[in-house]
Amino acid sequence: MKITVAQINPVIGDVEANTQKVLESIKLAQEAQSDIVLFPELTLCGYPPQDLVYHHTFIDKMEQSLQTIAVHSKNIMTVVGLARPNLGPGERGLSNSAAIIVDQKLVGFQDKWLLPNYDIFNERFYFDPGQKTQTFTYKDKKIGVLICEDIWQHSGYVSSRYARDPVLEMEKLNPDILLNLSASPYQYDKPDQRVEVCAKTARTLNCPLVYCAQVGANDSLIFDGYSVYVDQTGELRQLAKGFAEDHMHVDLSAESCACPFHYDPMSDLYKALVLGVRDYFFKSGFKKACLGLSGGIDSALVACITAEALGPENLLGISMPSRYTCDLSKNDAQTLADNLGFNVTTVPIEEPFTEYLGLLKPHFQDLPPDTTEENIQARLRGIILMAFSNKLGHIVVSTGNKSEFALGYCTLYGDMCGGLGVIGDVTKTQVFALCRWINRNKEIIPWSTIERPPSAELRANQKDSDTLPPYDLIDMVIRSYVEDYLPIKVIAKKFNIPEPEVRDLCRRIHRAEYKRRQAPPVLRVSKKSFGIGRRYPIVQNWLKKDPC
Amino acid sequence: MKITVAQINPVIGDVEANTQKVLESIKLAQEAQSDIVLFPELTLCGYPPQDLVYHHTFIDKMEQSLQTIAVHSKNIMTVVGLARPNLGPGERGLSNSAAIIVDQKLVGFQDKWLLPNYDIFNERFYFDPGQKTQTFTYKDKKIGVLICEDIWQHSGYVSSRYARDPVLEMEKLNPDILLNLSASPYQYDKPDQRVEVCAKTARTLNCPLVYCAQVGANDSLIFDGYSVYVDQTGELRQLAKGFAEDHMHVDLSAESCACPFHYDPMSDLYKALVLGVRDYFFKSGFKKACLGLSGGIDSALVACITAEALGPENLLGISMPSRYTCDLSKNDAQTLADNLGFNVTTVPIEEPFTEYLGLLKPHFQDLPPDTTEENIQARLRGIILMAFSNKLGHIVVSTGNKSEFALGYCTLYGDMCGGLGVIGDVTKTQVFALCRWINRNKEIIPWSTIERPPSAELRANQKDSDTLPPYDLIDMVIRSYVEDYLPIKVIAKKFNIPEPEVRDLCRRIHRAEYKRRQAPPVLRVSKKSFGIGRRYPIVQNWLKKDPC
Repeated sequence: MKITVAQINPVIGDVEANTQKVLESIKLAQEAQSDIVLFPELTLCGYPPQDLVYHHTFIDKMEQSLQTIAVHSKNIMTVVGLARPNLGPGERGLSNSAAIIVDQKLVGFQDKWLLPNYDIFNERFYFDPGQKTQTFTYKDKKIGVLICEDIWQHSGYVSSRYARDPVLEMEKLNPDILLNLSASPYQYDKPDQRVEVCAKTARTLNCPLVYCAQVGANDSLIFDGYSVYVDQTGELRQLAKGFAEDHMHVDLSAESCACPFHYDPMSDLYKALVLGVRDYFFKSGFKKACLGLSGGIDSALVACITAEALGPENLLGISMPSRYTCDLSKNDAQTLADNLGFNVTTVPIEEPFTEYLGLLKPHFQDLPPDTTEENIQARLRGIILMAFSNKLGHIVVSTGNKSEFALGYCTLYGDMCGGLGVIGDVTKTQVFALCRWINRNKEIIPWSTIERPPSAELRANQKDSDTLPPYDLIDMVIRSYVEDYLPIKVIAKKFNIPEPEVRDLCRRIHRAEYKRRQAPPVLRVSKKSFGIGRRYPIVQNWLKKDPC
Repeated sequence: MKITVAQINPVIGDVEANTQKVLESIKLAQEAQSDIVLFPELTLCGYPPQDLVYHHTFIDKMEQSLQTIAVHSKNIMTVVGLARPNLGPGERGLSNSAAIIVDQKLVGFQDKWLLPNYDIFNERFYFDPGQKTQTFTYKDKKIGVLICEDIWQHSGYVSSRYARDPVLEMEKLNPDILLNLSASPYQYDKPDQRVEVCAKTARTLNCPLVYCAQVGANDSLIFDGYSVYVDQTGELRQLAKGFAEDHMHVDLSAESCACPFHYDPMSDLYKALVLGVRDYFFKSGFKKACLGLSGGIDSALVACITAEALGPENLLGISMPSRYTCDLSKNDAQTLADNLGFNVTTVPIEEPFTEYLGLLKPHFQDLPPDTTEENIQARLRGIILMAFSNKLGHIVVSTGNKSEFALGYCTLYGDMCGGLGVIGDVTKTQVFALCRWINRNKEIIPWSTIERPPSAELRANQKDSDTLPPYDLIDMVIRSYVEDYLPIKVIAKKFNIPEPEVRDLCRRIHRAEYKRRQAPPVLRVSKKSFGIGRRYPIVQNWLKKDPC
């Protein structure tokens, strides 16, 4: 039996274009003489469609597409994902389903059982859990179909305690093949896990498992692809491309040949960010980006990622030096641009800065300089970036990293300006590691950018370390408190940091909530990013007084 | 039997302070010789605690508080809300519960059955549905306890199709009294509904119902109070204060005396917004606000609300005229400030604007003026507002209305600056109505502000109507498309507007998603506000091509 795994990159909400892609994949599968063509979860609307599914006309549109797809499914079994009305019992009235079409006939649906409702997942908002276990017989094979999370419970890799295990229920039906439609977001160090989950399921069911993953980025979420075929022993036999569309033709009767998974975490992180930028731009019809090029490490990294995503000809670096900008910064910015091949233009902010200081002097009298003056500089730069964006059509990419977002070491409406926070889920420690990785063969980012102490250059001789603890400490606390919800006492003990220091950092994280609420969406690459999937009140008193 | 309804205003996450309030209310109830003291939903952490409940130490803290509360509950039955571990089956491992303490002993818990998971509610993220129906016997009365949504299903006022109706299950146990702990957000024209829901439940159970509501604002959500006592015939007997803490002592044996609900929608809308501002500031420890005072109607309304919330002495109006600001605007701004008694200071933006035009000229060459120059003015004003905020500690209140947010008729990082979008869920039509209501007895807002055609004054002789359809049309489409999810065809027919015009407006609403994602939180007063409770992808193609 031959199966074509159509690892496609849908555009959210574009049912028409996504259907077109499905038809092309069916044609490819037919040409490859496949028996089955398998698509990712929610193929027709893309994952996640969010509140679009509340529009009846949107749901209707998918139903109509299904008819078109059926017509084109001659001599093939097509398994395609969609959202559809649930007329049975259930709170929300919709199902996240796979439609099974056999030789032009819609033979049934398999509804997703386990609806993840944590972190970035909120499927209980929209869908009701499936009720029916079944197999579909085709060419004398009993074919089981499950959707994404349905097989994760079985390996324990879920942040939920589901009452049922669809894999064990499927086991009773003794399928010959299991198909899985997925949309599983990229996460640093996660792809390995996914193969494990597939292997465990295949071993339990004692049948091969073919897993089709969505690829592409949708707002904050990046889907890495890497669709999987494991045989009944759980051995990985085929792996689709990472971070690109792919049609993987699986022949279940082919000789055994293990396919090792060579996973390079740093390379994948970089590819994920590049894909995140590319899809944000291309799927929304834009192609040009600009960014504030400070000569610092964050903007250097974002420039590399954006130049790779859009082509250097579509990137404009804007250098906006002030009285505090050192020559090294200016030179580094230019060297980077030369190395990557994008243009830089310079708009000094000295004059409007002086102007503003004078304008505000009568109002502020003799109050000493503080972050006000620093923020004015950052915001003057924001205005320039946005003016370029408005006038010339470049989208501003924002350069803040996760460590800064965590502590609020960033200026709202200043350096936080932009359509997309490219490295907003990348800690400063990871920023350094990524830059060294980029330079692994030759100097692309000037080494001086990487090696000198980080500075926002918003006052004379400023260094990040003047007001922030060391970044490795900050990043440990972010991981422990934000990503793992560890208690402060435990973090203090684990890393041998005084408890009050940990508490101060955690308080600072909460205090910056109001800034992050107005941040651009960030590309999610960790298991808990700021933004989507993290919901804290702005006004709250937890940790403000309590020794917790 | 006497019941004290402790309608309190908790601070989210401040378990210690909330517990203190509980102890004070118990004392008041004891002094009033009440048999029962009833608190709102999730009393100890405030509603909604969001991801704070993922911290074990946070949950532990509530458990500890319960012991303190028990110690203080001598000779009284205390019914208090909290989040607690669910050790039974369930996906999330927590319950939204009422603890029942009788004469210093914790006698049991009642877990919430129906967990709303739509709009601003996401209780399935955190909690498992309750399983047990029970009554608690106290002084020979069988007392049933249900939590908020549990009684709503029975009247059909829910956006969900729950499988169970707790009221009908409770009916089998034949309770003598039903208590309900609630946290039900204010919504324009909703308080009536709440009384109806209580009345219907009381009639079904043929017993009196005492309903304790949370009061106070938490970020975007405003809780209006108005706790309810209805007798077994469903007649409204007592109503607690709206928009303020209250202790309502209910005597179930008192003679019948109906209490009519005089509901004034406009007055309540105003009070809601005032409470929203007050709690945002006071609960986060701030007391001073500033705003850009343009002389237009939106900033006038926000000034009224903020002056009322914080006292005029804590409000600073900043007038930032440009070459396009007419004298009438300047005069109106000053008149309003004089009427309300707050200070205004003037910072003209002409010089930095000229400076910026010069700075950018070489880069933009001879491209014609467009929104770029308009946005620069708005952003220069944003910088000034934020500089006052940084230097003097005022929080900027943002003045954009819902109609502008809907269509993106506002400048990101410009007039969208601020900590709180005070009228971001108030349509322009409602803005006019509210201003006329404010002026019902005397002129507070200059009539010329209300009566002249709205203008952003960002270019010569600009009027909103140059680029926007009439506001009544915009607001009809917002209500129909955003709040009711009506199909475009239906909207066109309903209001007799050409279909392409409706479609253009809806597209424009989607296109502005990226701006709204970076907007300050808005005070929610409608059934569907932008921000919390509305989740649309930024990058998506629905409606971009399709004739839906």
